Amino acid sequence: MKIALAQINPTVGDFEYNLSKILHNISLAENEYADLIVFSELVLCGYPPKDLLLKRQFVDDCYKYLNILKDKISSNILVIVGFPEINKEEGKPLFDSVAVIQNKNIICTRQKLLLPTYDVFDEDRYFEPGKVVKSVELLNKKFGLSVCEDIWHDDLSWSKPRYHKDPIAELKEQGIEILINSSSSPYFIGKPNLRELVLKNCAKKNHFPIVYVNQVGGNDELIFDGNSCVINGNGEVCTKLKAFEEDFKVVDLDKLTVQEQSRDCFVGSSNLLAMTQGSPLEEELLQAVILGLRDYVLKCGFKKAIIGLSGGIDSALVAVITAYALGKENVTCIFMPSRYTSNTSEIDAKQLANNLGVSLKTLSIEEPFKVLLSVLSNEWEDSNTSLAQENIQSRLRGLMLMALSNQNGALVLSTGNKSELATGYCTLYGDMCGGLAVISDLPKMMVYKLAQYINKKEDKELIPKSILTKAPTAELKPNQTDQDTLPPYEQLDKILNKYIEEHSPLKDIVKNGISKETVEQVCNMIDKSEYKREQAAPGLKLTSRSFGYGWRMPIAKRYKEEI
Amino acid sequence: MKIALAQINPTVGDFEYNLSKILHNISLAENEYADLIVFSELVLCGYPPKDLLLKRQFVDDCYKYLNILKDKISSNILVIVGFPEINKEEGKPLFDSVAVIQNKNIICTRQKLLLPTYDVFDEDRYFEPGKVVKSVELLNKKFGLSVCEDIWHDDLSWSKPRYHKDPIAELKEQGIEILINSSSSPYFIGKPNLRELVLKNCAKKNHFPIVYVNQVGGNDELIFDGNSCVINGNGEVCTKLKAFEEDFKVVDLDKLTVQEQSRDCFVGSSNLLAMTQGSPLEEELLQAVILGLRDYVLKCGFKKAIIGLSGGIDSALVAVITAYALGKENVTCIFMPSRYTSNTSEIDAKQLANNLGVSLKTLSIEEPFKVLLSVLSNEWEDSNTSLAQENIQSRLRGLMLMALSNQNGALVLSTGNKSELATGYCTLYGDMCGGLAVISDLPKMMVYKLAQYINKKEDKELIPKSILTKAPTAELKPNQTDQDTLPPYEQLDKILNKYIEEHSPLKDIVKNGISKETVEQVCNMIDKSEYKREQAAPGLKLTSRSFGYGWRMPIAKRYKEEI
Repeated sequence: MKIALAQINPTVGDFEYNLSKILHNISLAENEYADLIVFSELVLCGYPPKDLLLKRQFVDDCYKYLNILKDKISSNILVIVGFPEINKEEGKPLFDSVAVIQNKNIICTRQKLLLPTYDVFDEDRYFEPGKVVKSVELLNKKFGLSVCEDIWHDDLSWSKPRYHKDPIAELKEQGIEILINSSSSPYFIGKPNLRELVLKNCAKKNHFPIVYVNQVGGNDELIFDGNSCVINGNGEVCTKLKAFEEDFKVVDLDKLTVQEQSRDCFVGSSNLLAMTQGSPLEEELLQAVILGLRDYVLKCGFKKAIIGLSGGIDSALVAVITAYALGKENVTCIFMPSRYTSNTSEIDAKQLANNLGVSLKTLSIEEPFKVLLSVLSNEWEDSNTSLAQENIQSRLRGLMLMALSNQNGALVLSTGNKSELATGYCTLYGDMCGGLAVISDLPKMMVYKLAQYINKKEDKELIPKSILTKAPTAELKPNQTDQDTLPPYEQLDKILNKYIEEHSPLKDIVKNGISKETVEQVCNMIDKSEYKREQAAPGLKLTSRSFGYGWRMPIAKRYKEEI
Repeated sequence: MKIALAQINPTVGDFEYNLSKILHNISLAENEYADLIVFSELVLCGYPPKDLLLKRQFVDDCYKYLNILKDKISSNILVIVGFPEINKEEGKPLFDSVAVIQNKNIICTRQKLLLPTYDVFDEDRYFEPGKVVKSVELLNKKFGLSVCEDIWHDDLSWSKPRYHKDPIAELKEQGIEILINSSSSPYFIGKPNLRELVLKNCAKKNHFPIVYVNQVGGNDELIFDGNSCVINGNGEVCTKLKAFEEDFKVVDLDKLTVQEQSRDCFVGSSNLLAMTQGSPLEEELLQAVILGLRDYVLKCGFKKAIIGLSGGIDSALVAVITAYALGKENVTCIFMPSRYTSNTSEIDAKQLANNLGVSLKTLSIEEPFKVLLSVLSNEWEDSNTSLAQENIQSRLRGLMLMALSNQNGALVLSTGNKSELATGYCTLYGDMCGGLAVISDLPKMMVYKLAQYINKKEDKELIPKSILTKAPTAELKPNQTDQDTLPPYEQLDKILNKYIEEHSPLKDIVKNGISKETVEQVCNMIDKSEYKREQAAPGLKLTSRSFGYGWRMPIAKRYKEEI
């Protein structure tokens, strides 16, 4: 029995485009005499469609294109596609379903049974969980059809609900011989390993093969890594599709051969540790950011990007990634010095732009800064204008980037990292300006690691050594460094990991050898910066908990945790 | 039997403060010999606690303060308080519960059975629905204890899920004589009427009285309107607590007297119509905005606000509301003219500030504007710099307001209306700057209605007539008016109401006598402005669907609806 795995990159709401991709993959499968082809979850409309699902017209359009697809399948090949199915009974108006199509007929549908409503997921907002667990007889075999979360019942990670039932166990009881899973399972660092482990465990426990097809591509803050695969009944990987790219493969289920050995699995809190120990996760992370950035820019209808280059590590890394993602000819860098900008910064920014082959323009903020200080000087209420002056510089830079963007149609990319966004060490409407915050889910230590990895991979100092070694500074006042305000990044990032990714109590965080004062200071900064994050640009999700959809904290609150 | 209704305004996470309010109300109830006192949903931690509920320490603290409260109740009075209860079985880790406390004992708890996960609500993210529907014997009567959504099963409005069971019907079958409902039910225009209707219908259908206690106060974008009440078994209102204020009342359930007649009920799509027909909803709306604004400012730790006054209607209305909410001494207005600012604008802004008795400062943006144009002029890629120039002006104003705020600690209030935010007729990092967007859920026509209502109520031209009558303009280029870019606001707001509040298909919107071209133009503008709203300041929810938590649209999408 030959099964095709179609790992495609749909665009949310672009039915014509998604349909054409689906039809193309079906014809590839037919050419290879596949008996069945599997697509990812909600492939017809793209995942996640979010509140588009609340529009009656959108759901009608899903049905319209499902019917067009159905009518175009005139052969015997079985096609499994994800789509939002109308629920005619009580409960939420939709199911998250797959349809099995053959010969211009929808043979059957199956509904997702476990709905994730945690972290970035809001599926209970739209969907009713499926009521019926029922195997399907296809090609003289008993198949189990499942959707994404359905196979995650046994997941050992820390933040999941304890579901009431295990639909896969029920399917097993019904005697299924093969499990199909259509997924749109988003990336975070270590997730591909975690997911593979979940799939292996599931196959091994139940002694049946799993055909797993995941979405690939970036949609807003989420990056789907693909990594579709076939696992045999011993829990071994027999076929693996590409990571972070579209891919297509046909496998003969009767002739499976083991393709690769188990990799070590880094999960959750150990991710950061794994990174700092130089694990192979840097390459995965780099590919994720490139894909997420490229798809956000292109799916938003842009081609070019504009970046404020400071001479520091964050904007340097973003410039490199953007050049990888969009091509150097589509990247414009702007260097905007002030009276506090060092010579080193200018040299480093120019060297980097030169190394990358991207255009670099210099626009001083000094004149407008002076004029603004003079306009405002009569209105200062006291002599302490330091914070206001720092922010004016940052906001002038934001204003100039936006003006250039308004004029030339390039998307401004924001370059702040997670350590800054967490602690509020950033200026709202200043360096936070941009359509996408490329690395706002990357803690500072990981920014360094990724930059070092890139130089190693390129086998040259693509990012000038000086950028990697000098002390981080915002250069908004004389002789400023980040560590005037923040504890050392090694400590800071450890606290962030515990406080944000794991929601750890403060009293547990101090057990990591960090002083009570430092933990309190950092967590207090995090709590007080909610208002900035509320207005932050969308940022690519790279860790197990990013700000954005996965982080919903009240702003007007007064909660103080005791240690 | 005497029952006390305690309608208080808790602050999310401020356990000490909330506890002291609770204890104070208990002592008031004891003084009036009440047998039982009812508090609102999750009163102990404040509603909505959002992702604070994911912190183990936060839940531990809820239990800590529940126990402190319990130990302080040494009398026979029965106390019903809302708190997050740990779920020790499968499923989500918490229940949304009420505890009944008496004589230092927790007698029992009951769990919320229907969990809203739609619009602004995310309760399935945190809570497991209660499993058991069970009446409670108190004071020799059979009570039903319910939480908020539990009584909304029969709600006729358009956007609710069809729940599988009606917990109130089950309690009725168990023979309850009185229904208690602890709520945190947020406001939108017409909601108090809708809610009263739901309560009346429920009481009438089941022939039992309902004691309904709602939270009051603003928490981030949500405003809780109070309006707690007692309804008799005929569905008549016998006691009504204040709207938009804390309140406390003791009622004798054996001596209920009908207090007020039914009011007409305006719901959903008819709200806007009701407003434009001069219904009594303006007063309700005004009180809502005042409360929401005041609580946001105070609960965020601010006392003063700063507003950019343009001479137009939006900033005028916001200035008036802010003076009402915080006191005129806490409002600073800044007038920031450019070369395009008319004399009328200056006269109107000054007149308004004078009428309000608030301080007004004038800061011209002309010099910094000129300098920025000269710095940028070498970088313009072509001659079409109009949009960029308009945005620079708006962003300079935002920058100056933020600089003053940074220096004097007053919160910047953003003054844009919903019609602008919907269509993207506003500048990101410009006029969108601010800690709170006071009227960003108020369509332009309602802005006018509310302004007119205020003048009528004040019986004078508090808002100068010229502001109410002149053509709206952003004054960012010569002779500009809003209607150069937008259709007439009467049409625009009708489209917004259908497209946003009701998610209506375009083909239904054109049935309202608006041309296909206008509907397509406006809806296209709405779709394309998602990226601006993603970075907008939180805005007070005033309609049945506001942007913010109740509106979760993808940005990188390509969905085009056909008419």
